[in-house]
Amino acid sequence: MSRILDSIDDPTQLRALTIPQMVQLAQEIRSEIIEKVSVRGGHLAPNLGVVELTMALHAVFHTPDDLLVWDIGHQAYVHKLLTGRRERFHTIRQFGGLSGYLRREESPYDVFGASHASTSISAALGLAAARDLQGKDFKVVAIIGDGALTGGMALEALNNAGSLKKNLIIVLNDNEKSISDNVGALHHYLGEVRRLQTTPSYRRLREMAKESIEKLPVVGDMAREAAGRAETSLKQFVMHSKSGAIFEELGIKFFGPFDGHDLPLMLDVFENVRQIAGPVIVQMVTTKGKGWEVAEKDSTKWHGPGAFDYKTGTIKKNPTDPPTYTEVFANTLVALAEQDPTIVGITAAMAEGTGLKKLHQRFPERYFDVGIAEQHAVTFAAGLAVGGLRPVTAIYSTFLQRAYDQVVHDVCMQNLHVVFAMDRAGIVGEDGPTQHGVFDIAFLRTIPRMQLMAPKDEEELRHMLYTAIYMDGPVALRYPRGKGAGVPLGKDLVKLEVGKAELISPQKLEHAVGSECAILAYGSTVAQAEVAARELAEEGIQVAVVNARWAKPLDEELILRLARGTRRLVTIEDHMVAGGFGSAVLELLEKHGLLHEVDLRLIGLPDKLVEHGAPTILKELYGLSSAHLKEVIREMLGSSRRTLPSV
Amino acid sequence: MSRILDSIDDPTQLRALTIPQMVQLAQEIRSEIIEKVSVRGGHLAPNLGVVELTMALHAVFHTPDDLLVWDIGHQAYVHKLLTGRRERFHTIRQFGGLSGYLRREESPYDVFGASHASTSISAALGLAAARDLQGKDFKVVAIIGDGALTGGMALEALNNAGSLKKNLIIVLNDNEKSISDNVGALHHYLGEVRRLQTTPSYRRLREMAKESIEKLPVVGDMAREAAGRAETSLKQFVMHSKSGAIFEELGIKFFGPFDGHDLPLMLDVFENVRQIAGPVIVQMVTTKGKGWEVAEKDSTKWHGPGAFDYKTGTIKKNPTDPPTYTEVFANTLVALAEQDPTIVGITAAMAEGTGLKKLHQRFPERYFDVGIAEQHAVTFAAGLAVGGLRPVTAIYSTFLQRAYDQVVHDVCMQNLHVVFAMDRAGIVGEDGPTQHGVFDIAFLRTIPRMQLMAPKDEEELRHMLYTAIYMDGPVALRYPRGKGAGVPLGKDLVKLEVGKAELISPQKLEHAVGSECAILAYGSTVAQAEVAARELAEEGIQVAVVNARWAKPLDEELILRLARGTRRLVTIEDHMVAGGFGSAVLELLEKHGLLHEVDLRLIGLPDKLVEHGAPTILKELYGLSSAHLKEVIREMLGSSRRTLPSV
Repeated sequence: MSRILDSIDDPTQLRALTIPQMVQLAQEIRSEIIEKVSVRGGHLAPNLGVVELTMALHAVFHTPDDLLVWDIGHQAYVHKLLTGRRERFHTIRQFGGLSGYLRREESPYDVFGASHASTSISAALGLAAARDLQGKDFKVVAIIGDGALTGGMALEALNNAGSLKKNLIIVLNDNEKSISDNVGALHHYLGEVRRLQTTPSYRRLREMAKESIEKLPVVGDMAREAAGRAETSLKQFVMHSKSGAIFEELGIKFFGPFDGHDLPLMLDVFENVRQIAGPVIVQMVTTKGKGWEVAEKDSTKWHGPGAFDYKTGTIKKNPTDPPTYTEVFANTLVALAEQDPTIVGITAAMAEGTGLKKLHQRFPERYFDVGIAEQHAVTFAAGLAVGGLRPVTAIYSTFLQRAYDQVVHDVCMQNLHVVFAMDRAGIVGEDGPTQHGVFDIAFLRTIPRMQLMAPKDEEELRHMLYTAIYMDGPVALRYPRGKGAGVPLGKDLVKLEVGKAELISPQKLEHAVGSECAILAYGSTVAQAEVAARELAEEGIQVAVVNARWAKPLDEELILRLARGTRRLVTIEDHMVAGGFGSAVLELLEKHGLLHEVDLRLIGLPDKLVEHGAPTILKELYGLSSAHLKEVIREMLGSSRRTLPSV
Repeated sequence: MSRILDSIDDPTQLRALTIPQMVQLAQEIRSEIIEKVSVRGGHLAPNLGVVELTMALHAVFHTPDDLLVWDIGHQAYVHKLLTGRRERFHTIRQFGGLSGYLRREESPYDVFGASHASTSISAALGLAAARDLQGKDFKVVAIIGDGALTGGMALEALNNAGSLKKNLIIVLNDNEKSISDNVGALHHYLGEVRRLQTTPSYRRLREMAKESIEKLPVVGDMAREAAGRAETSLKQFVMHSKSGAIFEELGIKFFGPFDGHDLPLMLDVFENVRQIAGPVIVQMVTTKGKGWEVAEKDSTKWHGPGAFDYKTGTIKKNPTDPPTYTEVFANTLVALAEQDPTIVGITAAMAEGTGLKKLHQRFPERYFDVGIAEQHAVTFAAGLAVGGLRPVTAIYSTFLQRAYDQVVHDVCMQNLHVVFAMDRAGIVGEDGPTQHGVFDIAFLRTIPRMQLMAPKDEEELRHMLYTAIYMDGPVALRYPRGKGAGVPLGKDLVKLEVGKAELISPQKLEHAVGSECAILAYGSTVAQAEVAARELAEEGIQVAVVNARWAKPLDEELILRLARGTRRLVTIEDHMVAGGFGSAVLELLEKHGLLHEVDLRLIGLPDKLVEHGAPTILKELYGLSSAHLKEVIREMLGSSRRTLPSV
């Protein structure tokens, strides 16, 4: 049977459908998403939750002339299916395929890219201000989740929107969730709004729309007609609002809550909202995972699953896979917390992703989920540290960017002992450019007092976490996404010496300095270094391998001795070359006047956006591989630059 | 006549005073602040505004056991005078003297340092959580201005505070000001609260305090007694509250507004608030500049004046001083905006500081003050850029740290043409470590697509601003605080080539490559380079001088030719060495395999906090001087490392 979906090349065809056809299309979209995502994984529950909402938006607003600004964008699969990307949809999140988020390069319907939360209102307000300054006439709609609304910048934007008074429509996609359950007072407030249904919000909406229309001299007739249509199709609605006092007091009209799965209702609501002057918030209540029972029941598990069997609703997992870095981190933290009541954990709405859920289960009172609020998370942790506790702040590398000033100003400037556990450091894979954690060494190592380390594998992560918790001052620990190297996990924990690297091979320094080259590997790239050294040894080339452990402070003594001894160093890191670990080694050699005595090569990511795709593909592509390491070392040894006359 | 102030060694003595004595002390404190600040300048109006508030806090709360967490901290002069720093007060903001902000190292009364806005609630909440986990019993008070409350992290913290339900007192110092007039919907909301006086907030406060006290089993008696005292001294009060619905809905009790200059009233209010359980906000209305007419009248001008004559109330200014970088920036921007309606300006509550006030005066509709909300400012600018405008976002270097993720995620990842005008880059002087703008090159240059430049003087700033506005993609322009070099300002504007440095001397490249060394100077340090080269020439040492102009993209061709020709390079920058401009040059040489052929030295700031003090002192201290440059170059030429056998 042919699908309606196959006839939708752009929203024009959607707008021509009848309500029953739209309802059928919604079902087709759900099936398409479940099937396609099941192959390689992706954001499932968020997209199932916004099928009707997305359809209603594209049906009522004249996209792409009217602008939809999606927050985060992991819920934009429906949007992609409706805007000409249906045929490429099966490539989503794969190397060379569609992005799992919004990308301006990908489609004119992708107005503003996103993958970090809470940006949409700011961007939409900018677009609305630009529109008005240029005397243009179109609608701007920001779609933001209730989770993202706890992010400070969304609140900054609301504050500004309430005073600028631009025509701007904010759709609050209220599913009571971030990735995990939502937290915070605002969340409770919205819950209350959902429960207390006292004000006839819908009637008010229609009245305000009419009023606004009367005031529009030019588009009046057309708009009046549209409003008329909306009115005739008006249905009884069941939801009302406590009037969103919190927003109203900021000068933003508030309507809702409405059922975000009731297509006819939403068409009416948007038709009316479309015509209201000034900033407006419409609360749409949706259910994450809607329409697929297993996902509805546990939307956190199904937020972004890996490959799964959509017939049985089971996520595919290789039982022989080693534990993830996240799991090892979480288990170690809980074990340490058992022994020490001063250890506390902080997450910014990432209980599952960071593994802190385990701490929550064991010590609920020593666990703080502050919501999507990284800035507050860091300064709150600084307060905990001043208060005599040992806070472990678990924030992905890419999200710590949100709290950069707090790391500088509140933690490092005061030399407070806050531990930053930066999961998802380095190339994260399918989530792409905005999610790779490839800037952290650069933005952190320039800050005085900050100390940085990275484990070579999940076993070393255990010791590093232990070390970090019991050292002094600010310290950030970076480790990669996904499964560990599969090394055996010990029982004891060892305190590592601050600023001391591990010489892996040859084990004795006096032998290492006699090598032809030394590889200084930071973090998980130690594995590639070991392979390269082993294979080069088979070619008769002796290469020393160092697990650097610390990007700051560097093991100056070891590096200088190897530099003087081998005269050839290669650094490798899962991070940008610009400002990274290798750059720190360069600065060290400069400081000691050794630059012109040592041939040093830096391996890392080039000065461009790293696209999305499987980590193995990306690492190969950008030379974070043993093959590339070997190539560089062979080339170094082959060149005799040192003895050539200079150019 | 002896002053009461001279008897106050710590708050104990304050607590023993009668009300009339306190009133006299308030006057003495005002005189002391006006006199001492007049000598070298400092934050005047904010401190005059909080004299009574600070006294009431220290009188009621048992500092330092009870914790006062001040937001920003530039209003902590009164606090310093009352907490044992009276005798050193005349050294404030001077090298080796008291900090102009809070510093944990300086006093046990300085619980949490600050100088950036909006951090206090987060820190205080962390302290309260740590207290409760450890079963301790003391009060935590955050004091935050209404301006700082528009910062996203303060709102994140309120959201968290409303749900954690810790005992926490938030004093809202409401003076209707940031540095400039306040903006945003929240500001208007607070204004409304001030006007609409319908709820008997004070009575409610007393009732709630009583209720909370009844519930406290242990401290009950003492507290009851204290509450009794408060009640007997109760006076008629005139101010009531609209009940602060916006906060109440977040689960935070709200009381006020109260007159923040009425000492007896505040003593009562704090005595009551002290005993309330859960998070509480108390709104105190104060007047910036209170008690000194000239400052009250124009509190923006007197926010942080330089030296002034306190008898006449006139700010000392040298009429022969050249214009500041800020003035030249603002004038150039307005001139360009005259010609091009797509140019718009964005500031985060720094209309005066950034000079954007001039744009506001000329083109109010093309000027956006978004409040203390740097994150929103940047993404709002990104939206303006997508909307077809040319946004110039003027944010101090140190405050751009607040919007780091937005620069990465919203601007650079999307390659949007947003111009960042980073005033106060480099050492800013008396404001000290938290305000120096010495990390921006490092945190920005690691981001793909970002382009960075810095002018050698105020005339070049004109051309750079023009260039930045009419190039493509993200670009950030850094320039120092204070007056320019005094060079003549031209009329025409020249578009500079992206990534092209200026060879200053010798003017011909074929001569420059024959020099014994080349100085690559970035930004205002070009001046020191020119002096050093001139003086070295007198010694017979020929040194080339390059005005680098771009830290990204570097002028690779010129730098490589000079490297190959001279074999000796020195970089100098007003920024950390770690990750800075010199580090970028190192990476360039590495990329081209030139490291071991060139002796390169980096001059910049070391890996430590740069203290406060006059910029000339600090620059001398850290070697950003022609003398140090000469020393380094002489040493390079003297050493014959290149020909020595390696170690």
